[in-house]
Amino acid sequence: MNDAEATATTHAGTGEVGLVEPRDFVCGEPFTFDSGQTLPGFTLRYETYGRLNPARDNAILICHALSGDHHCAGIHSPTDRKPGWWNNLIGPGKAVDTNRFFVLCINCLGGCQGSTGPSSPDPRTGRPFGVTFPFVTIRDMVRAQKLLCDHLGLASLYAITGGSMGGMQVLQWAIEFPAFVKKILPLATTARESAQAIAFNEVGRQAIMQDPAWNHGDYPRDGGPRVGLAIARMMAHITYLSDASMDRKFGRRKKDPGAAGAYSLDVQFEVESYLRHQGESFINRFDANSYLYITRALDHFDLATAGGSLEAAFASVQAETLCVGFTSDWLFPPEQNRAVVLALLRAGKRASYAELATDLGHDSFLLESPQLYDLVRGFLEKE
Amino acid sequence: MNDAEATATTHAGTGEVGLVEPRDFVCGEPFTFDSGQTLPGFTLRYETYGRLNPARDNAILICHALSGDHHCAGIHSPTDRKPGWWNNLIGPGKAVDTNRFFVLCINCLGGCQGSTGPSSPDPRTGRPFGVTFPFVTIRDMVRAQKLLCDHLGLASLYAITGGSMGGMQVLQWAIEFPAFVKKILPLATTARESAQAIAFNEVGRQAIMQDPAWNHGDYPRDGGPRVGLAIARMMAHITYLSDASMDRKFGRRKKDPGAAGAYSLDVQFEVESYLRHQGESFINRFDANSYLYITRALDHFDLATAGGSLEAAFASVQAETLCVGFTSDWLFPPEQNRAVVLALLRAGKRASYAELATDLGHDSFLLESPQLYDLVRGFLEKE
Repeated sequence: MNDAEATATTHAGTGEVGLVEPRDFVCGEPFTFDSGQTLPGFTLRYETYGRLNPARDNAILICHALSGDHHCAGIHSPTDRKPGWWNNLIGPGKAVDTNRFFVLCINCLGGCQGSTGPSSPDPRTGRPFGVTFPFVTIRDMVRAQKLLCDHLGLASLYAITGGSMGGMQVLQWAIEFPAFVKKILPLATTARESAQAIAFNEVGRQAIMQDPAWNHGDYPRDGGPRVGLAIARMMAHITYLSDASMDRKFGRRKKDPGAAGAYSLDVQFEVESYLRHQGESFINRFDANSYLYITRALDHFDLATAGGSLEAAFASVQAETLCVGFTSDWLFPPEQNRAVVLALLRAGKRASYAELATDLGHDSFLLESPQLYDLVRGFLEKE
Repeated sequence: MNDAEATATTHAGTGEVGLVEPRDFVCGEPFTFDSGQTLPGFTLRYETYGRLNPARDNAILICHALSGDHHCAGIHSPTDRKPGWWNNLIGPGKAVDTNRFFVLCINCLGGCQGSTGPSSPDPRTGRPFGVTFPFVTIRDMVRAQKLLCDHLGLASLYAITGGSMGGMQVLQWAIEFPAFVKKILPLATTARESAQAIAFNEVGRQAIMQDPAWNHGDYPRDGGPRVGLAIARMMAHITYLSDASMDRKFGRRKKDPGAAGAYSLDVQFEVESYLRHQGESFINRFDANSYLYITRALDHFDLATAGGSLEAAFASVQAETLCVGFTSDWLFPPEQNRAVVLALLRAGKRASYAELATDLGHDSFLLESPQLYDLVRGFLEKE
């Protein structure tokens, strides 16, 4: 089976991608990071759904967010009850239609879900790289993705989409490889990480790095700064929601409405219990050093730096853009998404901005939204 | 010198309160907390500025926020370069005019700046109470303040004001001691802590309680969970600012714009350096257990609980209200301040709402604002 063939078994008519299997792309060529550091090679874990057409030009690249991974649709076993993270968007007949498109999603370089990152063994020592891993930028992630696209023999990308950090990659792609990308759909994102977003990232990093178990990044794979990582995740999770959605979902409801423990530092409110669960489940699936590296990549993201202005940075862009912001997103608020499109328009590019009224916060782009599906479908279908 | 006489030396014409001295009120009577727990007595540290009039009815009580204290105006020594936290509002000829009013500010019960709290020595053991200290509510704080007012022989309070947690106390006062309070001026506050605010409090508490140095609340006065407390403070500090003010104040400016360390986990952005400083300075002035107790008091604050509705809770209020919200405050946003006034109006009370357009976030109420001063002055001067 060719790498470029679908790894997913699609079930026509069911609307579901069905069983999928991750694959690994092992790049044996040296890779030089933006920092100037190098690796002799790297691995990217990825999944694909749908079939590449004979012209090899029907591929859509999905870029995941900070804590996401390559598994964005389908299930890994017949009993798997939790499909990929964007399963509501991707599948036969869905907005990203796998009957028509070859969909590709890649765990980012520097990540910890199968792609090479700080938790990967350093071939020189056999132990995890830890903080000796080269620093990673959004541009590094994109350049590594391009090597996989070339390996798969893609002639071009019909479209690239993703939200949050995924949206940053989408924008970077259109700048870095303008002739390779036909349409881009950045969602809930920004062209520059704001001071507030850097601040939240920094608090999360401090929680991790001040945890004695971090040990300057040198910890065993099954250990590490679990406490610090859980705290970082709990805090970050609040920034993905909204005041209104948290009030609707949890309000001031108590776990145990009885009088017992009414005055206590233990869990009392449902929202506390929910956050602790978010922290606990995250530490079982994410590497703390990857969290440090990827948040640092976000901090460094400022497209205007290279060109002197955002407009200048977009000068090379050939892709047509639809950027979508969400009214209740206060991490990458609507104005930051609008700013992307304004700069593209000033640079003379084809670009549109759509704003969806939701009260679900930053995570709106991930959640059930027929309005978003219609926008995505319309943008992908039009010539 | 009588306790009720001014402890501040006012300098007429200078507009400054000048040298002030904190005092202690030692209450020897048993105090029963809302939790049912008791203390045989307690101390409240306070400051006063201006002079109590013969009718003893010109007092204004200032209620401080979570990390504030009793030192809200004047200086503690001639070389003291940092005046009290609300010095811009309070003084001779200022909006809260000490030529006319006797101003009183009290470190809250459960605090750590001189009033009895978890860091106070338990007379039974000689060691800090730690988490054996009774749980404290906003109502407990207010009831303790009332005992000090009685001790000072105040006939009534002409007004009470405060922002954030201070505003909660203001509202609780008007409900608890309706005949004692003529005017209330709650600022940047809420009648019920929201799920999002509880969530941020909980992350801060987890950072403290998961720090091994917390040791279940049992730590020496000069030790304790300094790392956890600093992280809690860094995070909370972000919630006191706004995206816009952080972008204006720090933007993406680097500490060392040179190439050295461009890719590093050390401080790179000015906003990181600022936050670390906030965390560092906080741990030298605040007790971690007090932080746990006071944030829990905030979480439990929901005025509607007692009466079944906010309107019912306000049924007893006699004071006239001016509540001020700030457009960029996302911790206690304008709608939560508006809700206070709407409920008062529905309950048939005299109440007004004013909203000030600022981009300085929750901390707007503390910062230089001629608009706020005019509102406060007008509300205090009118009959």
